[in-house]
Amino acid sequence: MKLKRYKKEFAHAYTMGTSPTIELLKTKPELVLKVIVHSKLVPGEGLQRIRTYIDRHGIRHEQNDRLIESLWPKRDCFVIGVFSKYAPALDDGADHVVLVNPRSAGNLGTVIRCMVAFGFHDLALIEPAADVFNPSTIRSSMGALFSVRFQHFPSITEYATRHAAHRLYPFMTTGRSTLEQTAFTQPYSVLFGNESSGLPGEYEMLGESVRIAHAAAVDSLNVAITAGITLHHLCRSSHAKVQDPGHVS
Amino acid sequence: MKLKRYKKEFAHAYTMGTSPTIELLKTKPELVLKVIVHSKLVPGEGLQRIRTYIDRHGIRHEQNDRLIESLWPKRDCFVIGVFSKYAPALDDGADHVVLVNPRSAGNLGTVIRCMVAFGFHDLALIEPAADVFNPSTIRSSMGALFSVRFQHFPSITEYATRHAAHRLYPFMTTGRSTLEQTAFTQPYSVLFGNESSGLPGEYEMLGESVRIAHAAAVDSLNVAITAGITLHHLCRSSHAKVQDPGHVS
Repeated sequence: MKLKRYKKEFAHAYTMGTSPTIELLKTKPELVLKVIVHSKLVPGEGLQRIRTYIDRHGIRHEQNDRLIESLWPKRDCFVIGVFSKYAPALDDGADHVVLVNPRSAGNLGTVIRCMVAFGFHDLALIEPAADVFNPSTIRSSMGALFSVRFQHFPSITEYATRHAAHRLYPFMTTGRSTLEQTAFTQPYSVLFGNESSGLPGEYEMLGESVRIAHAAAVDSLNVAITAGITLHHLCRSSHAKVQDPGHVS
Repeated sequence: MKLKRYKKEFAHAYTMGTSPTIELLKTKPELVLKVIVHSKLVPGEGLQRIRTYIDRHGIRHEQNDRLIESLWPKRDCFVIGVFSKYAPALDDGADHVVLVNPRSAGNLGTVIRCMVAFGFHDLALIEPAADVFNPSTIRSSMGALFSVRFQHFPSITEYATRHAAHRLYPFMTTGRSTLEQTAFTQPYSVLFGNESSGLPGEYEMLGESVRIAHAAAVDSLNVAITAGITLHHLCRSSHAKVQDPGHVS
């Protein structure tokens, strides 16, 4: 197989850089097709961990500077993991994050990183949506993508029908209650709109709409910020979500 | 003056797009040199507001499609404001946000938007730092830049000396207390590190270090997310910061 710059229609995708490649090797070793290393990759803890996983799972690997530079011309990445795409299904018993028509790969990755940080592992994407396997998504998720289940739905109606037990909480600048006033009944789905337009007005009818109180001087918050504040709040109000590893000195 | 694509050394800068240009005209009309409009700018509330400010302040304006396309080749912007750069000083009595060596213009703009949303109006930048006047910073701030005072400092020591009454709260993954455990004594400065490395270890000694509790599965949070969660938390714990405009239907 000759490797080319990533396109959405490929059956495989790439992790660009040390952290996402380690996450891939740690969580999805069975999907890894190959690891490509650049001669400039600095020996250190990261490279050592990559080598350990490669040996443990008998993963193909090669050193190939030109291939790395052709796959990721930004020249700030010295290791690439190549893996087969996969299509997990959501856990119907878990709380969900629902992103409606996210556009930016960077924001999508940032939301995924927040999800894992605050104990959420199920992501519904309402199409059209930015590509979860885009190298920029994976890179801004820092590889957290491999720790979430994600599933695409053609419409919010389709999603709501499939997960009928979930209570829907659409986040809108016109939301009825603030984040702190809202009692989230599990299993729940928190819904966020896209970067430019937020959620359309009709989402108000789908569930209990929520707003994050802020000064009128700004029209709205960035979607990743809204999701970050929300998931942090929900994590703190539910002790089951994650354990704080505590102070490390 | 012949206008050219933005460079950091220019004495002027640009707002790209309707929202940032409206914010510029609303908050800093005396600094506006010119407004350039594209023939594709859709008539509507935005254009009407721009016209009102132009008339009120007698601001120069022209329609010039080629100039807009040469200043911002992305072709997703149909109005540009040209303004003189300025150098505000921080309010020594107010709480401060301190960004240490921020690298990404997008993240910097997102943090500024969060600041205004949650009632913070003073930003210290420890150099080297991304350019506040970069069109991408202004764009991701949605023009909130014009509602904050910002000042550059060559080092954190210089900053701390100038604002000796401020208590410093460096945010670090190894922070001693969680955000919720920390009592913030006013006037305070919340310090955030950059995208790739966070704050260096010695910042631990500068003040009371803080962490945002999250799962060990991710190494750290994105800096804009950390700032967003923090400023939201501080805003909620201090009623003076902002008034929630409430539910709008």
